[in-house]
Amino acid sequence: FRRTRSLNAPSPIQQFGPCGRIMKNSAMVMTIQDPASQRLTWYKPPLTVLVIKKVRDAAVLQPFIQLVKWLIQEKHMVVFVESSVLEEPLLKGHGAFLSIRDKLMSFKEGKDDLTDKIDFIACLGGDGTLLYASSLFQQSVPPVMAFHLGSLGFLTPFEFDNFQDQVTNVLEGHAALTLRSRLRCIIIRRDKEIKDANENNGMKSRRPNSTNLLVLNEVVIDRGPSPYLSNIDLFLDGRHITSVQGDGLIVSTPTGSTAYAVAAGASMIHPSVPAIMVTPICPHSLSFRPIVVPAGVELKISVSPDSRNTAWVSFDGRNRQELCHGDSLRVTTSIYPVPSICSQDQIADWFDSLAECLHWNVRKKQKHLD
Amino acid sequence: FRRTRSLNAPSPIQQFGPCGRIMKNSAMVMTIQDPASQRLTWYKPPLTVLVIKKVRDAAVLQPFIQLVKWLIQEKHMVVFVESSVLEEPLLKGHGAFLSIRDKLMSFKEGKDDLTDKIDFIACLGGDGTLLYASSLFQQSVPPVMAFHLGSLGFLTPFEFDNFQDQVTNVLEGHAALTLRSRLRCIIIRRDKEIKDANENNGMKSRRPNSTNLLVLNEVVIDRGPSPYLSNIDLFLDGRHITSVQGDGLIVSTPTGSTAYAVAAGASMIHPSVPAIMVTPICPHSLSFRPIVVPAGVELKISVSPDSRNTAWVSFDGRNRQELCHGDSLRVTTSIYPVPSICSQDQIADWFDSLAECLHWNVRKKQKHLD
Amino acid sequence: FRRTRSLNAPSPIQQFGPCGRIMKNSAMVMTIQDPASQRLTWYKPPLTVLVIKKVRDAAVLQPFIQLVKWLIQEKHMVVFVESSVLEEPLLKGHGAFLSIRDKLMSFKEGKDDLTDKIDFIACLGGDGTLLYASSLFQQSVPPVMAFHLGSLGFLTPFEFDNFQDQVTNVLEGHAALTLRSRLRCIIIRRDKEIKDANENNGMKSRRPNSTNLLVLNEVVIDRGPSPYLSNIDLFLDGRHITSVQGDGLIVSTPTGSTAYAVAAGASMIHPSVPAIMVTPICPHSLSFRPIVVPAGVELKISVSPDSRNTAWVSFDGRNRQELCHGDSLRVTTSIYPVPSICSQDQIADWFDSLAECLHWNVRKKQKHLD
Amino acid sequence: FRRTRSLNAPSPIQQFGPCGRIMKNSAMVMTIQDPASQRLTWYKPPLTVLVIKKVRDAAVLQPFIQLVKWLIQEKHMVVFVESSVLEEPLLKGHGAFLSIRDKLMSFKEGKDDLTDKIDFIACLGGDGTLLYASSLFQQSVPPVMAFHLGSLGFLTPFEFDNFQDQVTNVLEGHAALTLRSRLRCIIIRRDKEIKDANENNGMKSRRPNSTNLLVLNEVVIDRGPSPYLSNIDLFLDGRHITSVQGDGLIVSTPTGSTAYAVAAGASMIHPSVPAIMVTPICPHSLSFRPIVVPAGVELKISVSPDSRNTAWVSFDGRNRQELCHGDSLRVTTSIYPVPSICSQDQIADWFDSLAECLHWNVRKKQKHLD
Repeated sequence: FRRTRSLNAPSPIQQFGPCGRIMKNSAMVMTIQDPASQRLTWYKPPLTVLVIKKVRDAAVLQPFIQLVKWLIQEKHMVVFVESSVLEEPLLKGHGAFLSIRDKLMSFKEGKDDLTDKIDFIACLGGDGTLLYASSLFQQSVPPVMAFHLGSLGFLTPFEFDNFQDQVTNVLEGHAALTLRSRLRCIIIRRDKEIKDANENNGMKSRRPNSTNLLVLNEVVIDRGPSPYLSNIDLFLDGRHITSVQGDGLIVSTPTGSTAYAVAAGASMIHPSVPAIMVTPICPHSLSFRPIVVPAGVELKISVSPDSRNTAWVSFDGRNRQELCHGDSLRVTTSIYPVPSICSQDQIADWFDSLAECLHWNVRKKQKHLD
Repeated sequence: FRRTRSLNAPSPIQQFGPCGRIMKNSAMVMTIQDPASQRLTWYKPPLTVLVIKKVRDAAVLQPFIQLVKWLIQEKHMVVFVESSVLEEPLLKGHGAFLSIRDKLMSFKEGKDDLTDKIDFIACLGGDGTLLYASSLFQQSVPPVMAFHLGSLGFLTPFEFDNFQDQVTNVLEGHAALTLRSRLRCIIIRRDKEIKDANENNGMKSRRPNSTNLLVLNEVVIDRGPSPYLSNIDLFLDGRHITSVQGDGLIVSTPTGSTAYAVAAGASMIHPSVPAIMVTPICPHSLSFRPIVVPAGVELKISVSPDSRNTAWVSFDGRNRQELCHGDSLRVTTSIYPVPSICSQDQIADWFDSLAECLHWNVRKKQKHLD
Repeated sequence: FRRTRSLNAPSPIQQFGPCGRIMKNSAMVMTIQDPASQRLTWYKPPLTVLVIKKVRDAAVLQPFIQLVKWLIQEKHMVVFVESSVLEEPLLKGHGAFLSIRDKLMSFKEGKDDLTDKIDFIACLGGDGTLLYASSLFQQSVPPVMAFHLGSLGFLTPFEFDNFQDQVTNVLEGHAALTLRSRLRCIIIRRDKEIKDANENNGMKSRRPNSTNLLVLNEVVIDRGPSPYLSNIDLFLDGRHITSVQGDGLIVSTPTGSTAYAVAAGASMIHPSVPAIMVTPICPHSLSFRPIVVPAGVELKISVSPDSRNTAWVSFDGRNRQELCHGDSLRVTTSIYPVPSICSQDQIADWFDSLAECLHWNVRKKQKHLD
Repeated sequence: FRRTRSLNAPSPIQQFGPCGRIMKNSAMVMTIQDPASQRLTWYKPPLTVLVIKKVRDAAVLQPFIQLVKWLIQEKHMVVFVESSVLEEPLLKGHGAFLSIRDKLMSFKEGKDDLTDKIDFIACLGGDGTLLYASSLFQQSVPPVMAFHLGSLGFLTPFEFDNFQDQVTNVLEGHAALTLRSRLRCIIIRRDKEIKDANENNGMKSRRPNSTNLLVLNEVVIDRGPSPYLSNIDLFLDGRHITSVQGDGLIVSTPTGSTAYAVAAGASMIHPSVPAIMVTPICPHSLSFRPIVVPAGVELKISVSPDSRNTAWVSFDGRNRQELCHGDSLRVTTSIYPVPSICSQDQIADWFDSLAECLHWNVRKKQKHLD
């Protein structure tokens, strides 16, 4: 009993009985490599590294300094940090930090463009550091190695203890990789269309331009600061699927299925499954179970025309903004995943994080009636 | 704003930042056609058709006779039915049936091999007819067109009313196709191994040979007729994942996610998502949520060594048999899916069946506080 | 096989074996009448009636006028309405309304005290009318008869069609009664205590006085307009029970178990069960199931001392206010229930509303495998 | 801010507005003592004690011998054990046991009647010992003190370590008491009625007499050894409430809400709430939530007339028997609760057992986005 190990499905036979078969459509053929075999390699040695640390956490300072110092002095890499880090009072008190401070490159979010500047990312702290790293790269993301301090996170599989050996290993290209899909979210403003229609007339929109963001966990549509939720319409590939009454709706990646979605009642999806999860938040209808749809669909969410209120959208917990009547949010799977470096492999890392973070089926053995 | 419609994920970019990329592994590359573009075609005109009707349901007799007669007389096809159908008292009372009875070919389940004999399958009745059709073809399955009588089923999208036009359409190759993945289930008996080890000594096993079955919905491991459940161990790709205490475990396809699994609390997965769902039945542990893993993994289930009792396995609700200490059940995705012909398309058919069969979020509009 | 019909538990035997028994505690003895036998009666004929109608709903106008006119002209009752009703443009267009407008008594919420002025309440519209009626009477509530227009609500069991016979029946004292318990909610402000401690020094608090409100459905503690929830501590009879991480917490009456709580995953409790339900909203912990505690306990909710954010409290969906560090919300069962008049009886009314409002187990019959 | 501590609801005001009130019905008045104030006392000093130990568990032997010896030698009590205990090989090997073996009284389940013979019960082991003790007393149950060995159970709050002090305390009447309600279950056989109707004709039933059992956790109606479940009809106080399609139905006490019911998705109910819980097992209908009804109702369950199969009933996991067409199961709250002695008090014991046995909301503190 032996088989090829594969996370993806085996290729199905394309012939059905003596005569039936799938009509060939060469425009729709793609060549993919089985996700189970994904390993990291490097074109050329990585030279620049972005180090992101958890904010407002004193426990992370010492490891941060250790890591940065080692990367500079032992690995001779160019280290980028957020510009605010250079000014942190706690850090500036550390002699060890002052000795390397001048060698650091810095950037400001929303001002400096990191595209093509970073070869490798190291995160130190909780899952939030990886979400933040993801937000910095709205297109191609460099490979990310995420350390937890204390206990394992969903997105932070590495222990810091012997970081030297582990980083060296990764830099030499020995590591399994989980490609965590992201969702591309676009808000189409009604005003925008009005503006477009009227631009020959010189009219101006007072509303911001379209939002276009990639999320790693989820995009949430809820009532925001409003006490009431509008009714929300959900479309899939242009077809009206259902309307939502309740506290809101979560559209999440498989990575995000273990974040907000699981708290709202969803099943948990391994990050290598090509899917999008749609989970209602406290729906009025008891039969409104979460659904899992193929990663290739396009979702559209808008406020129902007859709804009295508007809705609010937030992206990985940030950038909350209003969705007004006539606006729509489009969600598709991005071609830019986050290449997340595994500590062991795709399967072991995931199940370890379920046990650690969600106590998944962790229980002392106990017999039902004794 | 325009994109290729695709049910599968878009191919992710394989390069990450300036230097990182996925290591090429040509053994693991596969060429797939996007499921969203799957349409039925025929090599050569289908000549033989297997017609399966719901048993013990008088309402199905008239449509059955109509369909069979039309296939023979208008389409000049060779029609196969189960041999028991030829002897049904209710049918034999129909004059219309007697006139065609002699032209029917028949087969006996478990005795006659249908492989390569059937070009096309038509099902009449409930979801059970498709499960039965699936069980008849343990390898390649001819395209299946399933009619419901009364209300839509999960697996029976076609109305019978104007069956002539619809069947003609399909026979001419105008139809979308959902490839419903199946699970290949193998029970490895401990006795078998003992026998193998001893066969030079001429020892014989008293236990049946290994079971090897494909299921379309799910394989269930539960306590069967026993009042107590053993503890069950779950392995994934050889790794021990968790142990189950409760009433049992459901391993289901996406198709099966809306059957037993949804009753046990699972989310609902579109049949085109390449995944396997694992759902506990009434688990003792409150944190034991259902999980969705990639379709390419291999699951192994066995009775825990320290368990007092054994377990029972059933396949799409049939063939229940005991799983003893030392036995193991292996589950992988089969390369032989059921090509299920769509009435509209993959998306519309699925959401229509959710609404009809599960009342998914069907509710009169009502405001929370008024 | 015959037994006394009783909604309450049968009185348990107080003696256990030959020697054991419950220690008598006369201070804790109470005499209660079985809720199943509760029927409405009147000391003296009711003369004043408050009629509450759904706002912003044109469909309710005609029935409203009919009912009010009939109560005045046929029953010779004094009819109270909200003062805003007298000025409604839509109503003022109705000739029939103008003819009775002068005979109406009116009141302003928060200004006029209705205590002891109202003998009987009639509600017209959705569940919101009864919640509003409840909010008007913070102590004893007159018997309420609630009509739905269209489809049955949880709190509005009466059809309007033959309202004359039904109201006459009730006014003659022929009706079963559900006593819907309410929760008394008190917010103790930290500033208040500070002020009290300092009042000899002439210091003043800038914060409002303590809130003291009765709710019929639930009190909700959530993040309100804030994007983040604080951690919340839950105490029961002075003991710290657990801390809540998630979107919030719902403390509801049995009546409220079918409102917000059921959307958050709670079981449904008949209004005659003396209990308080505590339901987390999207809790991080998968094992955080809703709990049902005896109606006699006192709950205390406060923001955890180490929490970065505050929380927000709302009462039956209204009066949202901030709960700051050091503030606490106390919740107990009030001695002032809402006497809600049944259309049939306590049991039938409840199950009919479950079927109508939640589609509780309403499903076409369907066999699992065919 | 001070109030009477009370687990039961405060007595509601019986007057509603100036004229309304509840019609007096002296037949339905009962005098109850607040459960929160329940403490154990003794008429006369308890002399006989039944000691029940977990079967097939070597770890329990030493504590069992210690406890029995101490009760006999220090407390001069008459100790009863099951007759099978006297013959246990493991025990007979203990010198300490042999020295007291002759002083033990013994009984055989189903043969010897313990009514009025036992003043006090001590249980040693898991929750099963208390379920077993409950089953031995089908009417009044002596006070039960239950020790766990290892980790806390739902029903076994006492640690064994300093059992001498704790037992002495209890025997002196210092202990809070939880009265755990039980359900009286009666199966009415159709044959029985037929027999009764025909008894003048001398006909005999081949079926056993009616079953009449009290359960402490739950009565379960499921498919038993059958692969298919019949449809089950549920009646409440004679009214047809709903029909069940799925794996079965659990009717449980509040005590049982944390046993099988919680695994099937129910909320958890404190044992002092006078209620009965009805929980479906894997229902086909997604809206079929568990319900909580007042403890005073009568439930009737029967196989639907049009169902193809029968059902099976089991009582606290034992005595499984078939429920055939025409049979019915009646369930009411018994007047004979199990007086379960608290280690601390009703509230603390319950929440401690939730945390220990179900990991209720036990979780490392973790922030959502970092």
